[in-house]
Amino acid sequence: MISEKEAKNIILNATQDFGVEEIPFIKSVGRILKEEILADRDFPPFNRVSMDGIAIDLEKFKEGQNSFKIEGIQAAGSKQISLKNSNNCIEVMTGAVLPNHTNAVIRYEDVIIENGVAKIQIHEIIDFQNIHKKGKDKKAGDVLVHLNKKISAAEIGVIATVGKSIVKVAKQPKVIIVSTGDELVGVDEIPLEHQIRRSNVFSLVSLLEKLNISAETAHITDDKPILKQKISTYLKDYDVLLFSGAVSKGKYDFLPEVLEELGVEKLFHKVAQRPGKPFWFGTKTENDNNFNKIEKNNIKEQAVIFAFPGNPISTFVNCLAYFYPWYQKSVQCNQNEITAILGEDVSFKPNLVYFLQVKLASEAGNLVAYPVKGNGSGDLASLVNSDAFIQLPNNKIHFKKGEVYSVLRYRN
Amino acid sequence: MISEKEAKNIILNATQDFGVEEIPFIKSVGRILKEEILADRDFPPFNRVSMDGIAIDLEKFKEGQNSFKIEGIQAAGSKQISLKNSNNCIEVMTGAVLPNHTNAVIRYEDVIIENGVAKIQIHEIIDFQNIHKKGKDKKAGDVLVHLNKKISAAEIGVIATVGKSIVKVAKQPKVIIVSTGDELVGVDEIPLEHQIRRSNVFSLVSLLEKLNISAETAHITDDKPILKQKISTYLKDYDVLLFSGAVSKGKYDFLPEVLEELGVEKLFHKVAQRPGKPFWFGTKTENDNNFNKIEKNNIKEQAVIFAFPGNPISTFVNCLAYFYPWYQKSVQCNQNEITAILGEDVSFKPNLVYFLQVKLASEAGNLVAYPVKGNGSGDLASLVNSDAFIQLPNNKIHFKKGEVYSVLRYRN
Repeated sequence: MISEKEAKNIILNATQDFGVEEIPFIKSVGRILKEEILADRDFPPFNRVSMDGIAIDLEKFKEGQNSFKIEGIQAAGSKQISLKNSNNCIEVMTGAVLPNHTNAVIRYEDVIIENGVAKIQIHEIIDFQNIHKKGKDKKAGDVLVHLNKKISAAEIGVIATVGKSIVKVAKQPKVIIVSTGDELVGVDEIPLEHQIRRSNVFSLVSLLEKLNISAETAHITDDKPILKQKISTYLKDYDVLLFSGAVSKGKYDFLPEVLEELGVEKLFHKVAQRPGKPFWFGTKTENDNNFNKIEKNNIKEQAVIFAFPGNPISTFVNCLAYFYPWYQKSVQCNQNEITAILGEDVSFKPNLVYFLQVKLASEAGNLVAYPVKGNGSGDLASLVNSDAFIQLPNNKIHFKKGEVYSVLRYRN
Repeated sequence: MISEKEAKNIILNATQDFGVEEIPFIKSVGRILKEEILADRDFPPFNRVSMDGIAIDLEKFKEGQNSFKIEGIQAAGSKQISLKNSNNCIEVMTGAVLPNHTNAVIRYEDVIIENGVAKIQIHEIIDFQNIHKKGKDKKAGDVLVHLNKKISAAEIGVIATVGKSIVKVAKQPKVIIVSTGDELVGVDEIPLEHQIRRSNVFSLVSLLEKLNISAETAHITDDKPILKQKISTYLKDYDVLLFSGAVSKGKYDFLPEVLEELGVEKLFHKVAQRPGKPFWFGTKTENDNNFNKIEKNNIKEQAVIFAFPGNPISTFVNCLAYFYPWYQKSVQCNQNEITAILGEDVSFKPNLVYFLQVKLASEAGNLVAYPVKGNGSGDLASLVNSDAFIQLPNNKIHFKKGEVYSVLRYRN
């Protein structure tokens, strides 16, 4: 049995580069950017009028003139026009190019227009008033969005602005989520007394969907030859195999031996934590004889196997605690740790890291974690009442209200 | 001009019920549950073995017996078997039904098995040790997930467990996002000097995608008859029209008058806030003559029009500040307010609510908001460097480091 820290280190040393793919920018939310987004021109690209009003030659105003005959209109989206007579003005619209030979905009609110003449009602006007100057925000060639940024609605706007209709993002790993156990029946079936429906695979599918990974699913019965034959295929076809169940001490927990027989290197089995202890992790490196999968941009170097214990809460927390950081490091998008303040005293004796289910509350700028009482790792329904797991270290027994620990959040 | 509070009240009084639809449960993440999820049977459904080991009749152990001959195996997923001789034991696997006539499980770690006999190595065993008792978590008929819960991976597991392969969720509003402005060209086009590419509609599409709403998009040129004709159609076909631009004082800002000519009731125009002030909001109620859209489950009662100012940051913040809560109240899933601690002093003089761009950091259980310097509401790239807007009230000018305000978060 190894510590949670060692387990995480081993996992983070088994990350993998899945390469890069090009996709339509509008489909890229949540994906990890694999190119720099550069300004294709200055931003704003021209001296941009930022208020509806009139544009003048400021010198004339400074010389004492405050009535300006309207000479024309500069609309947004129209080619730049020129002020012909510097005693006149041009009506200008927000978003328009500032007309040639003008250098200040006075908003409609500050002028009175009568008979085609605008009378300015204010006494101070500064150079380039109400003008968003060309290149003020960014110069052509500036980096607008950096490599490895997780794309959100904000980045989508920038990517559209610079005309990148196709964008390079990290390719996602090919993942299969496999349930085992003869006690499991399908969601559409009516279980007999000793049976239950498959549910962990679907929780895992949803947790991976949050990372924009579309995982496939499969179920294998507790039959060693079948297990071996199917897993052998999956090892060739997928980057990641996620299992739920069959890793404990049970008579039919064939998974560890089958994986080892198939040449998967066990990197650990069992982590000093609760829940989720009997977690098995290993990798299979492709050797030359077995080099049967070459994709367009990347070569499948290895398959990574996360075999989680079958209890619903164990599977769930281990996906958050281990698969998530493994994926994030693989695509080079490291997430900042989130910490929360314990809202109640908690005691936990075993010398194990304790992933305690909590409900989170935003209270005056604090993130407070209130423990949720569940009935152990089989109590799936208790996940519904929680938002996260708070991670309590194994070096103490009493955890006091007000102490700060990191949290694994699955609900926003 | 009305206050941000009044604007929000008006909007929250214009919410709408879009009805309910049935979808495959695995597609329901992020949607709002519109039925109660009930336990279809007790959970666990049987006395469930929670450790691999042996099951015994505890009376025999209490009488002093500590060696038990193994009589059989109870695997997970097998029908319940019975202990025939109460001096014997049965090997049991995690997830299995507890065999008949047994009432305690001793884990493999606490027994030595030799020649088909298990010798117990511990001295205290309690009734139903290592057994997750039938109905301990939930009783048949108990509510597992309540109405109006936003479905996450946790709920997916529960929904699968009770066999609801089809689930009732709130129907989403039909939304069209419309850009206006002759200065705009497509993402794939090369803009002339006075033009820029469309970007706000795509930011809005992405912001709505976060709510699992698939919006359609359209662009209309600054031509009043065309604008009127197109909007007239949209009012019939969509529940929500989101506009970006054409609501200011400009000569070609036809939108407010066109909407009013089409019978849309203006509920307000301009909110005392920065950015995002020239926001126009209205509703069009279907009258009897115009009752041309009856859908399967619900009748379209009204169209709601959010016409945001065209500056990128204005559109973005108004979507978060107004459309999000409108949608959440419409589907009856109210989100808790998030607050953050200001990380720096800020001064803001105008008598307006100030939506200030901030970067958020989780620091020792605190959510700290650091102001991000942008160049005003046109500076789209500054959104890339921020995570949220902190909402500073209009009743003061100096905001001190350490003070707590609510935040509108667009990045997790």
